[in-house]
Amino acid sequence: MSLNADAAAALAPVLERIDADLDAATARLLTLMRIPSISTDPAYKSDCLSAAQWLVRDLQSIGVDAEIRTTPGHPMVVGHVGDDTAAPHVLFYGHYDVQPVDPLDLWDNPPFEPAIEDGPDGPVIRGRGSSDDKGQLMTFIEACRAWKSVHGTLPCRITFFFEGEEESGSPSLVPFMTDNAEELKSDIALICDTALFQSKTPAITTMLRGLLGEEITISGPTKDLHSGFFGGAAINPIRVLAKVIAALHDDQGRITVPGFYDGIQELPDDIAAQWQALSFDEKAFLGDVGLSTPAGEVGRTALEMVWSRPTCEVNGITGGYTGDGFKTVLPARASAKISFRLVGGQDPHKLRESFRTYVKSMLPPDCDVEFRGHGASPASVMSTQNPAFEAARGALSDEWPDTAAYIGCGGSIPIAGYFKQILDMDAMLIGFGKDDDQIHSPNEKYDMESFHKGTRSWARVLAALSA
Amino acid sequence: MSLNADAAAALAPVLERIDADLDAATARLLTLMRIPSISTDPAYKSDCLSAAQWLVRDLQSIGVDAEIRTTPGHPMVVGHVGDDTAAPHVLFYGHYDVQPVDPLDLWDNPPFEPAIEDGPDGPVIRGRGSSDDKGQLMTFIEACRAWKSVHGTLPCRITFFFEGEEESGSPSLVPFMTDNAEELKSDIALICDTALFQSKTPAITTMLRGLLGEEITISGPTKDLHSGFFGGAAINPIRVLAKVIAALHDDQGRITVPGFYDGIQELPDDIAAQWQALSFDEKAFLGDVGLSTPAGEVGRTALEMVWSRPTCEVNGITGGYTGDGFKTVLPARASAKISFRLVGGQDPHKLRESFRTYVKSMLPPDCDVEFRGHGASPASVMSTQNPAFEAARGALSDEWPDTAAYIGCGGSIPIAGYFKQILDMDAMLIGFGKDDDQIHSPNEKYDMESFHKGTRSWARVLAALSA
Repeated sequence: MSLNADAAAALAPVLERIDADLDAATARLLTLMRIPSISTDPAYKSDCLSAAQWLVRDLQSIGVDAEIRTTPGHPMVVGHVGDDTAAPHVLFYGHYDVQPVDPLDLWDNPPFEPAIEDGPDGPVIRGRGSSDDKGQLMTFIEACRAWKSVHGTLPCRITFFFEGEEESGSPSLVPFMTDNAEELKSDIALICDTALFQSKTPAITTMLRGLLGEEITISGPTKDLHSGFFGGAAINPIRVLAKVIAALHDDQGRITVPGFYDGIQELPDDIAAQWQALSFDEKAFLGDVGLSTPAGEVGRTALEMVWSRPTCEVNGITGGYTGDGFKTVLPARASAKISFRLVGGQDPHKLRESFRTYVKSMLPPDCDVEFRGHGASPASVMSTQNPAFEAARGALSDEWPDTAAYIGCGGSIPIAGYFKQILDMDAMLIGFGKDDDQIHSPNEKYDMESFHKGTRSWARVLAALSA
Repeated sequence: MSLNADAAAALAPVLERIDADLDAATARLLTLMRIPSISTDPAYKSDCLSAAQWLVRDLQSIGVDAEIRTTPGHPMVVGHVGDDTAAPHVLFYGHYDVQPVDPLDLWDNPPFEPAIEDGPDGPVIRGRGSSDDKGQLMTFIEACRAWKSVHGTLPCRITFFFEGEEESGSPSLVPFMTDNAEELKSDIALICDTALFQSKTPAITTMLRGLLGEEITISGPTKDLHSGFFGGAAINPIRVLAKVIAALHDDQGRITVPGFYDGIQELPDDIAAQWQALSFDEKAFLGDVGLSTPAGEVGRTALEMVWSRPTCEVNGITGGYTGDGFKTVLPARASAKISFRLVGGQDPHKLRESFRTYVKSMLPPDCDVEFRGHGASPASVMSTQNPAFEAARGALSDEWPDTAAYIGCGGSIPIAGYFKQILDMDAMLIGFGKDDDQIHSPNEKYDMESFHKGTRSWARVLAALSA
């Protein structure tokens, strides 16, 4: 999709402005990054507030009617700009909080003293929050700043919505969205918290897997027993748990929970064709972590396995004696943390019940099981029928060397689902991170190219959406 | 088997002497129990030495040529008495060290301030070491003291052999036995460190299971992965470990390691008949720990399962995130501690190799396994052909309400095997503990009846062996 001549003419000076302003934009990002807004640690509560206040001031400086909105946790930042009801209305979401920085000794530089460094693929912005999510969030603000600076106005009505609890479970998010639904409701939500598909291939993430977590504890004898005096005669909960886990997959790698695949559709042909065209390097993807063979359902590609197929994984297991040496105990109980990544069509609550019934059906005499639920969120599958998707894809393709792709994401980003559920809005996930950004880890970085071309990308997307 | 008239006449005053001396004997035991000879804790090193010295003096007081024998750890006590080469020569083994006493706050009285208390089944001697093994060890010494006091001599040649490291892995035992084999070699070893079958039924333990320990660690990816980004495509070592463990038993409860049952004989008819006659209360045995169904091989009794059949148990398992809450990690590795209780005919070293080969054969692509051995001791099966067994069984039956039984023990007591392997001696395990003695736990006790009738039992056994 190409812009018409008027729109293209309006865009060109904005892109020039972004290029010219890159150093100043970078300096602004570094200022924001110097605020240690670690949301999970109460010691940084006032820093979170400072980051929110900094954003309010920055938004105000480009004419946005922005303010701090308190919550029981860290504040939200909400801002509005534009009153042309003929223009499309977009909501932009990002988060200003960052992950903790432990272990500190693995950082080459202090995490909150950001710096520009030379990397093998060009300059990078190094420091906590550079990629997740301060750098990404600022690409959008910088694009708006350039529009405002060149044209005195923005091409869309925009609602800014920044959260400060994304890295600590977003406890205030759903209540806030629910309480302020009318104010936040827009035509579409833009979210900048994802990655490029590859360094030259921009992407719009249209499928996110859901997540169902279950902790199961199997108990047998009333107390730990001596394996000499009881071994053989007494049931061993670790063995029972192992049997249950082993039975959750068949020899084709399919999950055996009754009804597990109900409602799942095969990938639409157009998306399947796009994924095929991505020439995903399965060998490199697995090879990077020491593997060679996709371990999921027989006959599926690794890309399908992580983007469009559901999983059942054991994330933790414990039982009996786990210290040094040996202890011949028959434990009274054993437990495992089991999670399911879900895809479109799967109902997490129904599957939770089915899973529990299934596990109970496998128990031998004298065993009990306790379940503890840990979250149940459905998959998000965006309909690309909304013309904004093709408009944005065209804009991204204009900026980057490769055509933009609709991709999946094996992880779960609950915010996308919330926009749909609470505000009945589609969400479009566009981000410029890279797989090697080391988010959540020491030495987090964001490529200067991601920051620069990301800003240019948003300028293009805004132009395209307004066209 | 009954004693002839002469032997019976010699025994009667000894038993009377034991009865008359019970208070003084109890006082001596309490003195020994006041010495906190915790072998595993270096802080009690001098107390261990004190206990050994106390025993040397006590043996010397009844005419035994006893002395401390140093080792790299706690000392042995070795003593000899008697020079009538026509008399049988027995070795008596016990241990003077005790278990640690944590948690101290669960003791009703200080563990090393022993006291006589009234229990529901009569008076008990309460305190650390009362049953394991100071009280049991002293039954033999008190029997000898009574013989000596009445007759001025003992009915057998006796070698006393007391260890001070039984509760801390006996690191000095095998080297000491090897270095002093000639001195220790006797006709038979008597060991007093086991229990009655039931409160009125004395027992000689003739079968002890061996123990093979293996720690296995299965690794997959080179590092912990995010289950969103890799889940489905990457192999999960916890799942692989669960499959391996689940495959170790078939649906009949039999162990599937190739060759596992090679060399195992069914129980001899006479032993099987004796076990049958014991009317073992399977329901109570399992019910005490909250179970109802024997969990081992289909078609076997619980008694067989713990006394005469081999097992494969998982004593510990760990992998991934095991803290509070949830973490969607795909771990790089998972491990389990697996032990096998072995019976007569099984070769632990051969089975270790077979187990390792079997586990390797079950691994999917991209997985590795590391093994770490933790001990490999064969079962001990005593031949009751040695006439000393029937002699002792008759003597025990004369003392207690019920006929004495040959029984098995599901646990492993390596010392019995060492006497066979190193000194080519049969070992006879006779003890007077009860299942509720709380050995290794707070409030350990030994019934006064165990102490009194245990002493009388040894007087009878010595008479029977000398007859």
